[in-house]
Amino acid sequence: MKALRLHSYWRSSASWRVRVGLHFKGLPFEYVAVHLLKDGGQHHSEAYRALNPMRTLPTLEWTEEDGSQRRLSQSLAILEYLEARFPAPALLPKDTYLQAKARMLAEMVNSGIQPLQNLSVMQRIKSELKADDKAWSAYWNARGLEALEAAVKPLAGRYSVGDEVSFADICLVPQLYGARRFGVDLTPYPTLLRIEAACNELPAFQAAHPDRQPDAAPA
Amino acid sequence: MKALRLHSYWRSSASWRVRVGLHFKGLPFEYVAVHLLKDGGQHHSEAYRALNPMRTLPTLEWTEEDGSQRRLSQSLAILEYLEARFPAPALLPKDTYLQAKARMLAEMVNSGIQPLQNLSVMQRIKSELKADDKAWSAYWNARGLEALEAAVKPLAGRYSVGDEVSFADICLVPQLYGARRFGVDLTPYPTLLRIEAACNELPAFQAAHPDRQPDAAPA
Repeated sequence: MKALRLHSYWRSSASWRVRVGLHFKGLPFEYVAVHLLKDGGQHHSEAYRALNPMRTLPTLEWTEEDGSQRRLSQSLAILEYLEARFPAPALLPKDTYLQAKARMLAEMVNSGIQPLQNLSVMQRIKSELKADDKAWSAYWNARGLEALEAAVKPLAGRYSVGDEVSFADICLVPQLYGARRFGVDLTPYPTLLRIEAACNELPAFQAAHPDRQPDAAPA
Repeated sequence: MKALRLHSYWRSSASWRVRVGLHFKGLPFEYVAVHLLKDGGQHHSEAYRALNPMRTLPTLEWTEEDGSQRRLSQSLAILEYLEARFPAPALLPKDTYLQAKARMLAEMVNSGIQPLQNLSVMQRIKSELKADDKAWSAYWNARGLEALEAAVKPLAGRYSVGDEVSFADICLVPQLYGARRFGVDLTPYPTLLRIEAACNELPAFQAAHPDRQPDAAPA
């Protein structure tokens, strides 16, 4: 893999996950900013839809040694691919059952929380249903994080699954950032907060943080 | 793995995916019906929450040869686990890049469509926001299937990725069933319909169909 280009938005939690993965594996990449709000949402542009018809972030593009062009979207599919191509340092436990548990925790965020409060959904809640999009998002975050706290507790060491970083942590950290933005009280989730603090000590998580991205526009 | 027990609901699309996987791999299992509507939703019971705090279906339980009890939820995490333990017959392509594409297509359904129209979300749209839950679900199905049709087209053979069944097909078939229930016009997605027809010829897909489950209650 060479000439990696990540189509990303600083605050997109799925983009954030892949940024952690790339930094963790030591893979340099070009950052291609796609603004989710400017121009009516640059992810809705024809050019971006040609890359990713689902209009989601991120999309990773790269060139193989033989010159062939590659493209992939969906954060967990990208992380699985990076794990297969660059197994060290690992982002999944060696034990097959613990691997499954790491994927389960990752999916609890990836399919169980994040989709219900992504920007497209919030926009529709607000514009079509004339409802409180922030309250909607806070509800699903609290409901999901309560379940995640219960599911993580018997598995956690320093990180979500034992003492090694995994997909579960990569999904957790951006989700907690989102939950705070929606005003969710995180004190009922001490295990998740402890794991987040451990992750935040790692250079890959630091480098992937929204505020460190070229398109960051902190308030 | 022995004494497999699948907590399932006949119409749950995530349960359906795992049923296909189990039948495809030739793994017998006990069917434990969890009714999503009876008793205020049996997945909200204390007993089920102890198994799966996210209150989603399915959950797979089993016993290892050494007697240890195992439990896993999240359909794609379960399918990955079955694939690792029983690699033949395969449900992912051998080529790493095509494998990634199969996972990408699966995630477009798993995180991109299904979560936005699962029962919990529909109930909240209806009861809390007093809005049309069926119109809500139809919108996200049509939007997602349009993207899926575009993403599948360059990859498809007889199935979603070439001529071998994969996770992508396992996610597709139950989603199309759901889309029909919400009244979505599927004629704009001829590739998806063609793949669905090919899948429906396979015994594993036939055995996993909602109407064939012990808790089925067809209208």
